[in-house]
Amino acid sequence: MSEKRMRLFALKQSTVGHTAIGLWRHPRSQAAEYRSLDYWVQTARTLEQGCFDGLFIADALGVLDVYGGSTEQTLRHGVQTPTDDPLLLISALAGATSRLGFAVTVSTTYEQPYSFARKMTTLDHLSNGRIGWNIVTSALDSAARNLGLTTQIPHDERYVMAEEFMSVVYQLWESSWRDDAVVNDRAAGVFVDPSRVRPVGHSGKYYRVPDMALSEPSVQRTPALFQAGTSTAGRAFAARHAEGIFLAVPKASMARPLVADIRAQAAARGRSPDDLKFIAMLAVVVAPTDAEARAKHEEYLDYISPEGHLARHSALFQVDLSVAGLDTPLEFIETDGIRSTLDVFTRLDPTRRWTPRQMAQSLGIAAGGPTFVGSPATVADQMEQWMAEADVDGFNILDPMPLLSYPEFVKWVVPELQRRGRVWRAYRGNTLREYLYEPGTRRAPRGHPAEEARRLQP
Amino acid sequence: MSEKRMRLFALKQSTVGHTAIGLWRHPRSQAAEYRSLDYWVQTARTLEQGCFDGLFIADALGVLDVYGGSTEQTLRHGVQTPTDDPLLLISALAGATSRLGFAVTVSTTYEQPYSFARKMTTLDHLSNGRIGWNIVTSALDSAARNLGLTTQIPHDERYVMAEEFMSVVYQLWESSWRDDAVVNDRAAGVFVDPSRVRPVGHSGKYYRVPDMALSEPSVQRTPALFQAGTSTAGRAFAARHAEGIFLAVPKASMARPLVADIRAQAAARGRSPDDLKFIAMLAVVVAPTDAEARAKHEEYLDYISPEGHLARHSALFQVDLSVAGLDTPLEFIETDGIRSTLDVFTRLDPTRRWTPRQMAQSLGIAAGGPTFVGSPATVADQMEQWMAEADVDGFNILDPMPLLSYPEFVKWVVPELQRRGRVWRAYRGNTLREYLYEPGTRRAPRGHPAEEARRLQP
Repeated sequence: MSEKRMRLFALKQSTVGHTAIGLWRHPRSQAAEYRSLDYWVQTARTLEQGCFDGLFIADALGVLDVYGGSTEQTLRHGVQTPTDDPLLLISALAGATSRLGFAVTVSTTYEQPYSFARKMTTLDHLSNGRIGWNIVTSALDSAARNLGLTTQIPHDERYVMAEEFMSVVYQLWESSWRDDAVVNDRAAGVFVDPSRVRPVGHSGKYYRVPDMALSEPSVQRTPALFQAGTSTAGRAFAARHAEGIFLAVPKASMARPLVADIRAQAAARGRSPDDLKFIAMLAVVVAPTDAEARAKHEEYLDYISPEGHLARHSALFQVDLSVAGLDTPLEFIETDGIRSTLDVFTRLDPTRRWTPRQMAQSLGIAAGGPTFVGSPATVADQMEQWMAEADVDGFNILDPMPLLSYPEFVKWVVPELQRRGRVWRAYRGNTLREYLYEPGTRRAPRGHPAEEARRLQP
Repeated sequence: MSEKRMRLFALKQSTVGHTAIGLWRHPRSQAAEYRSLDYWVQTARTLEQGCFDGLFIADALGVLDVYGGSTEQTLRHGVQTPTDDPLLLISALAGATSRLGFAVTVSTTYEQPYSFARKMTTLDHLSNGRIGWNIVTSALDSAARNLGLTTQIPHDERYVMAEEFMSVVYQLWESSWRDDAVVNDRAAGVFVDPSRVRPVGHSGKYYRVPDMALSEPSVQRTPALFQAGTSTAGRAFAARHAEGIFLAVPKASMARPLVADIRAQAAARGRSPDDLKFIAMLAVVVAPTDAEARAKHEEYLDYISPEGHLARHSALFQVDLSVAGLDTPLEFIETDGIRSTLDVFTRLDPTRRWTPRQMAQSLGIAAGGPTFVGSPATVADQMEQWMAEADVDGFNILDPMPLLSYPEFVKWVVPELQRRGRVWRAYRGNTLREYLYEPGTRRAPRGHPAEEARRLQP
């Protein structure tokens, strides 16, 4: 492959309306089938046919109730509510595929490192090294109040907790069991050599884990690590821990400085800046011709729900966008939350006086990423150009029409990208980390804190 | 079927040594393959061929470190350590089968009801109603100290917490969403009718869940509920909540009063005593002839590890059985823990002065249940007789030789039991709860607290 390889991830959530809010109403939408295993198995198999690196399943542990201070619009438009647990899908999808990777959102805020480490190791065992973890700290107040917290932990303290959480799970994954701890010697009657297993002995501010890891080491040990936050604390966290970084930015020119900043912070910490792979969220509408694709996109937009989109966006930024109605320009609303939410839109078009309705229309089927519409060649052109301009490593492709959007992408766009030498024709390596780096790199590379933790092995 | 139907469950844990401790050393043992998905898929398919009602996967969230106060023997003999997460296996096994039920151990002590309810609903969605939950409160100190508790919660308080936990999850499963809440009306643009969804509004001593359930209702709503504790608090809990009760008792005469007591307590609470199905742990060694089966059993016993068994038994009863060495009769050790542990053995044979080594030998491949050894007819006779004497509803069959024991049982014993009208030749119904009761009974029956919670629907 002469050009830089384009990583392809698929981005979904186990819910009816993930980003293309309202499109479930389309006569051919199968979005409501998200609860069935067949829906997911078909999706995963399509992605593997298309040589996707991985399927990323996002999650939210609370209802979306910021817009109008209620769940009225959220429920009505199926906005990420109801939603099912993504982690419990993975073994079925690992069993239905042989190479596709999986990344799943799990919040450090609502897990204990000891049991969470075992969950990831179990999935790494069952998938033979194909599991990744999208690390989040959970922003939703609605999650906090239902999960044992009387108040939400402040944003920056969540990242301090997450730092300690990471140091514990690295020890559990990397340093507790030597690779040769399981000797499985039938004649000597020794399954595990106790001298090759180490209690973690962690006692910190938030977590206490005196004992050894419960699971024997898996192929990747530490799962491939992803992160998506772009706050100041989030960027520093990504620069230290993330191997893949998911972005949701509408324009390449807005992504580029973000990518440069995080790569620079990683380099300052002694990591190779190229060890961070940036994956940008993207919606694609493809058809044999540009005109057909444009018509299809217009048809999709007819189903987009403004209130639904605003319910989603309000929860995402924890700011109530219902306060001015749908058609009042938001520049007149003087709160910090509104101003920072509006900021992205004014950067998109500073000449416009953005109303909530216009914001929702702009979110369209991509909800914060770009939308590329056209023939296979047009879409491939746009992808190549965006990738170069933003200095990203690939895309996180959305699924506006489940069981239809990915088959179309795989049928039309993937072969075009393969002809251009951008997407591989066959997997190289077997683990998700090898797809991020190169065949043979199954464990966190030099300079990564997981690699440092490995040195503590007994 | 003229005779009472015999329920068949398979009992496993995702670990190398579950009950037949040491047998992993047998030349044909494949016990060390427990980490692979193929091992589990093959096992589940075999069970479904044999018309088993379900596969029950046990769990422990801590290492076994009571024997000698260390993990030395536990690791050496692979005694339930290392162990992987059972819940994460289920979707793969649901995808590889179409009728087999699944019951999984999850502790109320280390879950939040809000997120746990979603986990079970997700699995009920993905399996089309085939999920069951074995409710435990976790006895291991080693789990407590690694999972955020500075000290273990006392036994009886764990059951008080579990009571509140149950009342919350019943509300989340049964009363938060009406069956018709998801209207999926494309023309009207209403996915969920908000008036048909109710916030739970729970605020108790241990848990606070103000909001609605995150998932839409599943086929069974409340998963089929199982319980295994036989303490005083455990029996009362079972009488109120359990639909299936797993027993581990070596003799039918010892099981019968336990079964009678729990049935009577359930009746006193207004439940039908026959709504509680008792499933007794059992090891089977079968071969074409009695002599061959006996020889095979003897061969298996040669591999049993005394120290390994005692490490398991010490953790199970939280009493260190190493204090007297292997060959001192335990009657001379004057502690309450030793006395109550010894009690089961002296009831088995009051004439014997039990030493730890003899106890381990007696535990054999069944570790607390009976072992039936013989030809298909001999084993079937014993099963029928034990079932009648103990007044149980079926058996929880162990898997001393993974990938071999179940195929032999399905090949030899199941057809014999089918000929006798004891085991069905085809599943009737599609959900685990229907297998416990009868086709059509997909939700908790009258008198069960889940059924009472259903009445709170909006």
